[in-house]
Amino acid sequence: MPRPGPLSLNTATVRERWGLAECVDGCARRGIPGISPWRDALADAGGAQRAARRIREAGLTVSSLCRGGMFTVVDATSRRAAVQDNRRAIAEAHALGAACLVVVSGGLPPGSKDLDGAREMVRDGLAEVLDEARAAGVTLALEPQYPVACADRSVLSTLAQAVDLCDESGTGMGVVLDVWQVWWDPDLARQVARAHGRIAAFQASDWLVPTTDLAPDRGMPGDGVIDIPRLRAMAEAAGYRGPVEVEVLSDGGGRVTLERCCRW
Amino acid sequence: MPRPGPLSLNTATVRERWGLAECVDGCARRGIPGISPWRDALADAGGAQRAARRIREAGLTVSSLCRGGMFTVVDATSRRAAVQDNRRAIAEAHALGAACLVVVSGGLPPGSKDLDGAREMVRDGLAEVLDEARAAGVTLALEPQYPVACADRSVLSTLAQAVDLCDESGTGMGVVLDVWQVWWDPDLARQVARAHGRIAAFQASDWLVPTTDLAPDRGMPGDGVIDIPRLRAMAEAAGYRGPVEVEVLSDGGGRVTLERCCRW
Repeated sequence: MPRPGPLSLNTATVRERWGLAECVDGCARRGIPGISPWRDALADAGGAQRAARRIREAGLTVSSLCRGGMFTVVDATSRRAAVQDNRRAIAEAHALGAACLVVVSGGLPPGSKDLDGAREMVRDGLAEVLDEARAAGVTLALEPQYPVACADRSVLSTLAQAVDLCDESGTGMGVVLDVWQVWWDPDLARQVARAHGRIAAFQASDWLVPTTDLAPDRGMPGDGVIDIPRLRAMAEAAGYRGPVEVEVLSDGGGRVTLERCCRW
Repeated sequence: MPRPGPLSLNTATVRERWGLAECVDGCARRGIPGISPWRDALADAGGAQRAARRIREAGLTVSSLCRGGMFTVVDATSRRAAVQDNRRAIAEAHALGAACLVVVSGGLPPGSKDLDGAREMVRDGLAEVLDEARAAGVTLALEPQYPVACADRSVLSTLAQAVDLCDESGTGMGVVLDVWQVWWDPDLARQVARAHGRIAAFQASDWLVPTTDLAPDRGMPGDGVIDIPRLRAMAEAAGYRGPVEVEVLSDGGGRVTLERCCRW
């Protein structure tokens, strides 16, 4: 396997054992130059400003902040709350100097079967916060998620949809290429090429065979069936020069260690 | 919910309790005009000829036979075996007078990460048996499966791929619209329209929230989040006039009864 380029540790990979402070120290100790915190890790570390200072002092780059989005809601009150939360997320990403804010769209609102309507809510929600993101210099990085998440978490299912939204919106938006979410897509090569210059983050984990549980059952890069170097090459051909974020959501214990992240 | 049109009972829906004989009797008793057997049910009933006689005597229509395919293999021996098995499946579908043979492509061969190569194997395998299917008057009905099945069971993940293969192959191929497999697809309406005249079967079950297990955790139509009437309307607009096959793969017990299939 070719060298995967500079690494960034997504804090969710080691969340069972480490808070933000341990992640920062671990990255510094192991020579991992980047970090990608989740917002709960910031909160646990005393907020974005304190976290930003700690990360900066350790000399780490913030490749992304996870996450904003969740625009698919049942009523106007929830909608206002979602927009407010995205504003806070943009401010946190700005404080961290993060390259982007990962946006997960949200699934079907409870009780709804209106998939087109939910996708419309995502478009509207993004439009509502985009100017603020532009002003803060924070790219809204749309993450298409595996269709199995369509009902619960992400009505944005394909890279094609994400690139379409970028095309409609002009500057300020990009896409996240999380290989676990998109590796199956028969249209992937074409869509990655379409995303030229707009890939804001590249996240690596692997699809295990068998995969028995859907959210947390990801494998370490190299342990599964995804041809990650091929996807990385596609991303680089499409102008991506950023790090490989190792984001292995897993309850499997044991499988995930910082040492293995470094070796990969 | 509008009346769903004539029903067909897919034998996998009640496989935990009923063999083919009980399915046939149950359909006749409940006024369900169609049946869609799996091949294991034929084998258990003494083979395709005996099963065909029993089904015919009960006055039932065979909407599909499940299943052929599984063309993604590791070596020439396995490939010959797969082709032979598809020949047997075509003969069985012919004996039953089935409207089509459902084809599930197969996943990645063990140890492989070559998704394009696996998709090529599917194309080649279909080409090898297509003339025989045409001669037997059996439509090869390609079933795109939920991307979660990509590694294990189906590198054919989208309706777009299935329609592309139909376009390449000329007559003798069609597609299966299994709502559980494709409901999430943002490109679905366009692809169903493209499939005009080539939808060979329409299968209904529902996506439950939460879905905790992937293969067997389907819901009865109406219990989940899929807008089935909308998908049915798309299929009818694309010329489909066949029955709704109720195919609810579920280990949930209790949820699935023939009475509920009828009521739906």
